[in-house]
Amino acid sequence: MNSFPFGSGRPDPESFPNRGLAEAAMRILPELGDELALYPGNLGFEPMRRLMSQRFEKREGVPLPPEQIALTTGSMQAVTLMAQAFVDSPGDVILMEEFSYSGTIGAYKQEGAELVGIPLDENGMRMDALEKTIDELGNAGRKPKFIYALVTYQNPTGSIMPIDRRLDLLDIAGRHQIPVVEDHCYADTVYEDCHEPALYTLEHECPVVHIESLSKILGPGVRMGYLAAPQPLLNEILKFRRDGGASTLSAAIVYEYFREQLWDHVGNINTIVKEKRDLMFHMLADSPDVFEWFSKPKGGLFIWVKLTDGVDRSALSSLAESRNIDYASGSAFHVRGEDVPFIRLAFGYSSLDQIREGIPLLADCVRQCRIAS
Amino acid sequence: MNSFPFGSGRPDPESFPNRGLAEAAMRILPELGDELALYPGNLGFEPMRRLMSQRFEKREGVPLPPEQIALTTGSMQAVTLMAQAFVDSPGDVILMEEFSYSGTIGAYKQEGAELVGIPLDENGMRMDALEKTIDELGNAGRKPKFIYALVTYQNPTGSIMPIDRRLDLLDIAGRHQIPVVEDHCYADTVYEDCHEPALYTLEHECPVVHIESLSKILGPGVRMGYLAAPQPLLNEILKFRRDGGASTLSAAIVYEYFREQLWDHVGNINTIVKEKRDLMFHMLADSPDVFEWFSKPKGGLFIWVKLTDGVDRSALSSLAESRNIDYASGSAFHVRGEDVPFIRLAFGYSSLDQIREGIPLLADCVRQCRIAS
Repeated sequence: MNSFPFGSGRPDPESFPNRGLAEAAMRILPELGDELALYPGNLGFEPMRRLMSQRFEKREGVPLPPEQIALTTGSMQAVTLMAQAFVDSPGDVILMEEFSYSGTIGAYKQEGAELVGIPLDENGMRMDALEKTIDELGNAGRKPKFIYALVTYQNPTGSIMPIDRRLDLLDIAGRHQIPVVEDHCYADTVYEDCHEPALYTLEHECPVVHIESLSKILGPGVRMGYLAAPQPLLNEILKFRRDGGASTLSAAIVYEYFREQLWDHVGNINTIVKEKRDLMFHMLADSPDVFEWFSKPKGGLFIWVKLTDGVDRSALSSLAESRNIDYASGSAFHVRGEDVPFIRLAFGYSSLDQIREGIPLLADCVRQCRIAS
Repeated sequence: MNSFPFGSGRPDPESFPNRGLAEAAMRILPELGDELALYPGNLGFEPMRRLMSQRFEKREGVPLPPEQIALTTGSMQAVTLMAQAFVDSPGDVILMEEFSYSGTIGAYKQEGAELVGIPLDENGMRMDALEKTIDELGNAGRKPKFIYALVTYQNPTGSIMPIDRRLDLLDIAGRHQIPVVEDHCYADTVYEDCHEPALYTLEHECPVVHIESLSKILGPGVRMGYLAAPQPLLNEILKFRRDGGASTLSAAIVYEYFREQLWDHVGNINTIVKEKRDLMFHMLADSPDVFEWFSKPKGGLFIWVKLTDGVDRSALSSLAESRNIDYASGSAFHVRGEDVPFIRLAFGYSSLDQIREGIPLLADCVRQCRIAS
């Protein structure tokens, strides 16, 4: 039976450069000296940090010194470190979009934080709601430890926060002296011209930490991400790191592969994934009776889909599973796990055929799970 | 100026198989399919777990099913996961050898645990002291969350716990139903015939978690370790994992390299390091006026050295640093950070020349730091 992997956010598997990485390993490993016999340390393999600094500068137009970058085991380690560094006591508050990355929600709950969700609209986190929430918490004598925000290609909703709202966000955070953690893990998965400057590049009066990943432009199996922060904040965060550093073996090979072809690779993979996204738009639009609305993200790997009223979501989950259709339930992305009439569909990993066949099948499942009214 | 890196526990850099790993990458990466485009998941690259299962069985003579093994980013991640899984509230007690690995001490303090040290002798953790401590804590209504033990090639003292004491340890832990975490990261760094069975292989009535590493037989730059536990304990622990899994890129390359030559590699590196250990013994014995006593470990990477009375250890630290002599201060290994007249010398990473020249230089530094009496 065919399978339809619309669940987790993974890049196109066909374009994964197995051979390119093998050849990169063959070139760089014999030249490494004794680096692999040493602990990578808090910052990690320096050439990779330099390359990621160049990645940032090419995209954002402003420099990011390599000494402000620390390599991590995927961006998830960076995300988790934020709570380890900033959350002191159980119940400390973290503010985040009301719908956000399920991995982050799980990690922050595990660290004992109380997550307070800020409503979003098509432009991301709503600033009126953010300010109101901070005020209300303040009246109760509570100050959030930080604001975690996916301002670019928001997961799961796909929104991009416009520049004006970014400036408002930094203004609010600055006035209240609340650090901002910008999870920019979808940075280069972009299909239309829609760049907005990273918060890290904008003037700010509060601490800002910037997080990026290689999982979305290369693959999660390399477990390579990083965080950027100025000193002394960077060292304050890295004090909480307990893993000896990120794999030099992985970093060296990925560095060598990307050294000359980072942007060719990104351009190539985005062309492939854009076609998948467009096809998924098209297939979703073919079933307006079940997919009431869906986001049209210009970047990232997900479409956020609203189901029509009166669908038994638990039955849908079972039925879809029985047909090998994997998707992510909306509740997984709600900060309090509330059941909501949304699902998240990932378009990066599936083939065009899987999308062409799978979305109508999923529509059919939804139809079968309508609650008789 | 020459440098003398006797500080951290690293393997021989000359024998690091840069080229062997490069060739392994060239063989395996093109064959991997889409594994690198997927998250490694909680357990990680299956062939590597099978190989580590074989490693265990060859050494211990009993099987360890690959499905009981979870790959981690170095063994430090496994060590840290134990506290994340077992420590619920600040002040929860972890029992460990009074002198133990500094990284573990730091990680467990960060997780909010109270560390209670059990005195050691030349055979490792003392069982009379362990039982007494458990009783005293029990009288105060406190039950330790687990016992962390380096029973084989203990860091920093180099001791090996004999079988009788291992059985006593498991008996005590079983009677009190306290889990035991066996950090076996020096498993195959062995220079004399001295095998004692891993706790994990002995009959036990309490949960036992077994931790191993590739850092000591290959290199810490690959960041590859693992933990073993039976179900459902393994899943209970892995619930706390938040990193998406250990790098498949690193695991695949290390697997392919070790697939046919694990034991040749281990035999080769142990022969090289044994010569360094022997030379360090010899050079230490040449200065009995300053090195009052030192352990003679049959495995591991460290010699634990007692300085003669009346040495200004703070002055020694500065003087040694000015001469590029790196060693680890005894206080770093004390569970409460107490200043003790010991230093730990690592012999794996330095060259024979560095040992031959450096130990007499260090002896000279100690002589200069004697407090006039």
